[in-house]
Amino acid sequence: MVPRTGRIETAHGEVETPIFMPVGTAATVKGILHRDLAEDAGAQIILANTYHLYLRPGVEVLEEAGGVHKFSSWERPMLTDSGGFQVFSLADCRKITEEGCRFSSHIDGSKHLFTPENVIDTQRSIGADIMMAFDECPPGTATKEYAAKSLELTNRWLERCFEQYTRTSGKYGYKQSLFPIVQGVTYEDLRVRSAEFVQQFDADGYAIGGLAVGEPAEDMYRMIEVVNGVLPEDRPRYLMGVGTPANILEAIERGVDMFDCVMPTRNGRNGMIFTTEGVINIRNEKWRVDFSPLDPAGVSFVDEVYTKAYLRHLTIAGEMLAAQIASLHNVAFYMWLVREARKHILDDTFAEWKPQILNKITRRL
Amino acid sequence: MVPRTGRIETAHGEVETPIFMPVGTAATVKGILHRDLAEDAGAQIILANTYHLYLRPGVEVLEEAGGVHKFSSWERPMLTDSGGFQVFSLADCRKITEEGCRFSSHIDGSKHLFTPENVIDTQRSIGADIMMAFDECPPGTATKEYAAKSLELTNRWLERCFEQYTRTSGKYGYKQSLFPIVQGVTYEDLRVRSAEFVQQFDADGYAIGGLAVGEPAEDMYRMIEVVNGVLPEDRPRYLMGVGTPANILEAIERGVDMFDCVMPTRNGRNGMIFTTEGVINIRNEKWRVDFSPLDPAGVSFVDEVYTKAYLRHLTIAGEMLAAQIASLHNVAFYMWLVREARKHILDDTFAEWKPQILNKITRRL
Repeated sequence: MVPRTGRIETAHGEVETPIFMPVGTAATVKGILHRDLAEDAGAQIILANTYHLYLRPGVEVLEEAGGVHKFSSWERPMLTDSGGFQVFSLADCRKITEEGCRFSSHIDGSKHLFTPENVIDTQRSIGADIMMAFDECPPGTATKEYAAKSLELTNRWLERCFEQYTRTSGKYGYKQSLFPIVQGVTYEDLRVRSAEFVQQFDADGYAIGGLAVGEPAEDMYRMIEVVNGVLPEDRPRYLMGVGTPANILEAIERGVDMFDCVMPTRNGRNGMIFTTEGVINIRNEKWRVDFSPLDPAGVSFVDEVYTKAYLRHLTIAGEMLAAQIASLHNVAFYMWLVREARKHILDDTFAEWKPQILNKITRRL
Repeated sequence: MVPRTGRIETAHGEVETPIFMPVGTAATVKGILHRDLAEDAGAQIILANTYHLYLRPGVEVLEEAGGVHKFSSWERPMLTDSGGFQVFSLADCRKITEEGCRFSSHIDGSKHLFTPENVIDTQRSIGADIMMAFDECPPGTATKEYAAKSLELTNRWLERCFEQYTRTSGKYGYKQSLFPIVQGVTYEDLRVRSAEFVQQFDADGYAIGGLAVGEPAEDMYRMIEVVNGVLPEDRPRYLMGVGTPANILEAIERGVDMFDCVMPTRNGRNGMIFTTEGVINIRNEKWRVDFSPLDPAGVSFVDEVYTKAYLRHLTIAGEMLAAQIASLHNVAFYMWLVREARKHILDDTFAEWKPQILNKITRRL
């Protein structure tokens, strides 16, 4: 397990790893115009949620548009999750059966069924470059017995996902990859078993799921080490839903290549600004008359345009522009962080750089 | 009364009239980054509200920043209203006295007093290029007796505003103009009296207030004709808080030079899109699979990037990006409209162009 760099080829362009994928739930990264997301923040690939797109705008609209790229005008690579996480959290999935999961829409309460097969079909209709397998997501506190039983179900579902994947092909004339997900809560032997199991599909990449769901960070890092010790060296490894800047650098150090997290946008909307100098709660009185730029490093064009005092004013006044500036800045910060990590891996200076930069950017200002 | 073009010189640059001023209540035009407002939409001057800035961030912060331009990083011209309209509507002003108006903050209920003198002082601290006189705003349904009494108070306040204006000077080393406001509800003789009264101050420009407050459009147009027949030819005329695209073109035809209105941003946030082809309610089912550009004329860069179907999806999903796209597009549309009007006045084709363009842009699509 060493930090590494790589490239992922997709029909919509190449992605340089390690990479952070901003979360674009409903085919929009909240608060950021596509141009700024790509050209200013430097996003190379974004994630969208199958669950949300399935409900709105719906498969029919996406198919008529010719896929999510054309629908949303996002021309760079895109990844969709499988909807598993959402149906278990948002949609109140009460009935998990061998077949799949019946759930109620969080929008209108309507009843739906997700199965490994129809989740692949839906992702074919969406047309993301990378699709994710449908898995059960046990809580971080699950007993070993539950975790083992859940993993067996996830594995049977994985076989069905790949059967459906090989039976079908991309609807819009380009290739879509399917990544399996390693589960196993925080049980080493389950994680090893899962990481071995998924390799039979010879996938284009492998994901590590079910982490950063409440377990101690040290357990997460240990699981990453265990899993990455088993996964093949020559395929991208995607740690789902992670995380803080520290989580990301620790995981990169342990050989992870891809990340996604709502933190930069969601926390940004709540007034938390990640800067190259440390973390800011922009609501604090201390920024009231601080007319210095948002971030002296200028990771986004907004950093030089707007001051801390002005962003504080906008935030306290509940102005939309606050969320826009904070979201764009924070996403640009995350993209800057993984670009810097990549540079230091290539220069073979990652080991020295990591503690220094973490010391700086995790301070509370 | 003929349509006319002109230029207004300010310390922060020149404004070409006729001009529309997007409303930036709290020193932010809701949902639009400054760069896009200036460079994409082509805004030359924006309006901010004295009432809102007085409450948040407050005079002290604005003074410490060196004025609202530096505070907000908006480098082009800015105009502030006097707060009169807000204290009578938002802030529940119950006690209008000769002195001024005591009101309760809509934010925290705290008690404040606005007088002609301290409103000028506050606008000096804000530092907008154009300041407005403090006036009483009678409702559009006011009786003639009430309207006449109100106008007398407004006139006495106007004298006090100009006394305070001449006693003081700009706090940041540049000139600020003060515009008086013509009132008189829809009573011709009161409007004439008011338009004559205000000229004693030899102001840099004159505003027409108290219109578009519920009276029939024809009454508004008639009042504009009456007032512009009395106001001097060589000074800008600003019709406050107006209006629809049709209102604006009718007023331009009658010799008005400046406008402001929340309509492009507020209605945009509610899904109403003004296009060069007609008015769209983007929530309508008919746009569900309409993958044509938002506006074929491309008044903003977003028009070519985003489709009607995608904007509908974002609007229905309650995504922030919907409000951002709609606000930027609508403001760009208003700016396009006044630029086109200016061009046709200069070409001496305004009279033919106006009915044609109104026929097109006021259609419901």
